[in-house]
Amino acid sequence: MAGRPQTVTVASHFGEQSLRRIEQAVRELSGGRVLYDKDLVAPPRWPGDTVGERDFRRSPQEQRRFLDLLGEAEVLLDFPRDVDAPLAEVAPGLRWVQGAMAGAGPVAREAGLLDTDVTVTTAGGVFSAQLAEFVLGAMLDHAKGFERLRANRKRRLWHEGAVGTLEGKTLCIVGTGSIGRAISHRARPFGMRLVGVKRTVREGDAGRAGVEEVYPTEKLREAVAEADYVAITLPHTPQTEGLVGREALSAMKPGVHVTNVGRGAVLDEAALVENLETGHVSGAALDVFAVEPLPPESPLWSFENVIVSPHATDNAPHVTEEKLVALFVRNLGRYARGEPLENELDKELLY
Amino acid sequence: MAGRPQTVTVASHFGEQSLRRIEQAVRELSGGRVLYDKDLVAPPRWPGDTVGERDFRRSPQEQRRFLDLLGEAEVLLDFPRDVDAPLAEVAPGLRWVQGAMAGAGPVAREAGLLDTDVTVTTAGGVFSAQLAEFVLGAMLDHAKGFERLRANRKRRLWHEGAVGTLEGKTLCIVGTGSIGRAISHRARPFGMRLVGVKRTVREGDAGRAGVEEVYPTEKLREAVAEADYVAITLPHTPQTEGLVGREALSAMKPGVHVTNVGRGAVLDEAALVENLETGHVSGAALDVFAVEPLPPESPLWSFENVIVSPHATDNAPHVTEEKLVALFVRNLGRYARGEPLENELDKELLY
Repeated sequence: MAGRPQTVTVASHFGEQSLRRIEQAVRELSGGRVLYDKDLVAPPRWPGDTVGERDFRRSPQEQRRFLDLLGEAEVLLDFPRDVDAPLAEVAPGLRWVQGAMAGAGPVAREAGLLDTDVTVTTAGGVFSAQLAEFVLGAMLDHAKGFERLRANRKRRLWHEGAVGTLEGKTLCIVGTGSIGRAISHRARPFGMRLVGVKRTVREGDAGRAGVEEVYPTEKLREAVAEADYVAITLPHTPQTEGLVGREALSAMKPGVHVTNVGRGAVLDEAALVENLETGHVSGAALDVFAVEPLPPESPLWSFENVIVSPHATDNAPHVTEEKLVALFVRNLGRYARGEPLENELDKELLY
Repeated sequence: MAGRPQTVTVASHFGEQSLRRIEQAVRELSGGRVLYDKDLVAPPRWPGDTVGERDFRRSPQEQRRFLDLLGEAEVLLDFPRDVDAPLAEVAPGLRWVQGAMAGAGPVAREAGLLDTDVTVTTAGGVFSAQLAEFVLGAMLDHAKGFERLRANRKRRLWHEGAVGTLEGKTLCIVGTGSIGRAISHRARPFGMRLVGVKRTVREGDAGRAGVEEVYPTEKLREAVAEADYVAITLPHTPQTEGLVGREALSAMKPGVHVTNVGRGAVLDEAALVENLETGHVSGAALDVFAVEPLPPESPLWSFENVIVSPHATDNAPHVTEEKLVALFVRNLGRYARGEPLENELDKELLY
């Protein structure tokens, strides 16, 4: 896969500055075209949002114009929404799709790209800092008892007592990819003991992941056994589905705190609820859920010690869009020079 | 000030393990005695608490026994509570007091030690990690909107929207001592721009404080002007009293977030309340107050976006006690060898 990009179609909303940056890159690399029509993509819900309003629908005429734009694409920035046909049929000249999400496997499958030779790159890394902030914030919120302080404030209650600390505690990071490394990087100066879990463990993995020790996924129960905090960062693949279930949860230390910023399907929510009810899990912070939006009847809404974040903690205005465009522009250069792209999706492993 | 410590009196509650560690150190250094009676000090409110129950009172007989223990002291671990006479009169042979608080200046003044040649050492550094965790936790809580998420959870409301981030934001650390450095160390990997404020600026101070730039206190308004977050870590001295007042607050950026883990008197609470009311300050997290406990009528209790912590975020079971005892044992060694002690209180500057 190589060549100077002739036609780049931008399939979701990007701001003017981003588009100018992409156009300039394409102009310099190939003199090719950038196709984009902001009226044909979902309007952003906040500055820098590429997903856009959920209830956005194109008229039949708009849909035809949108399919025309897609049809010319050699390169796509983001997977288009509400396109029923396989993407390789919609865009016969398609060579590469740069997704706007970190876990692009399921979307690539839905778009029918797994059995094609269209390259898919994910936005892995673009969201890592924001997700790591969520994890560190949730752990500190738990350790420092902010929820209790807020409740006491309402009652004007000055109640001194013991307060936790991250220092000296153990954090198990399940998934040592870009998000996991962003977490370990931020957790290290707090004086935590860090362990990681990854699919296959090779020499030097611990150092690369910024943790003291790495366990292979088969030893997940061993890895979480000593952890005061467990942070899940895994994408949804057949191997990760339900990975953190009853067995793993019961192997955890009583009072463990769990965060999930990977994909909802990795964590068995029914098992988590049971463990929250018994107090075996003392708190959780979830940015992802098996079904999104989280249904109103989910018991997860009912726990004082659970932070429910609507898969939005990476909705950082400008920051995300800038990082995504920077990645895309770097990849455009690599594409033009025939080099391997950053973040290429493994169509077997789906991440 | 030097010599082998002959009599060490422990004047507040310490656990058995701590006492054994102190006794062993004294035995090895001088063969001297350690005086301690747990019935004469306030019982701990949580494991490792040296302050103890606020309503603890000694009977007249207990008070006499306590004064006897103090009277023999050459070295005191912690300032004794409820002793009215100047400490140097109570303990004529007193040479050194190791305080259990970071900001020991006002306590040393109250004990009448400022005009004596009794050395006072503070527990500076012992609490820094815990206080830095509070600051980072409060900033992340603010950036990630945890308070809003908690309110939405109660309503089972899935509301996506923009979320803040620490990355790329500016943090101004007012006071670049041990607490300030603990904050900068933890904030750095979040990709924040860090600036510091200290009394006098010398070459290399920025590097030592782990910040990009250091301003002298006179330029406080300039230092805070670009900050999205301001963290106050200063002790209470005549120079710091009311330092962060109307002028400094109005020099801050609209929407600034303020934390205070130094001393309450450094921050003008009335001015803070005004700025919270107008929204100029978008949130605050306070572990210290001008009057403690914070009076029930204080308006600070009434803001949803203020975390009120009862000067207790450093109440970390075991962690604090272990660090304090480790410091004391190091200082006992220095004392025995006639070396300068760690954390010696400057009786002019009061920190």
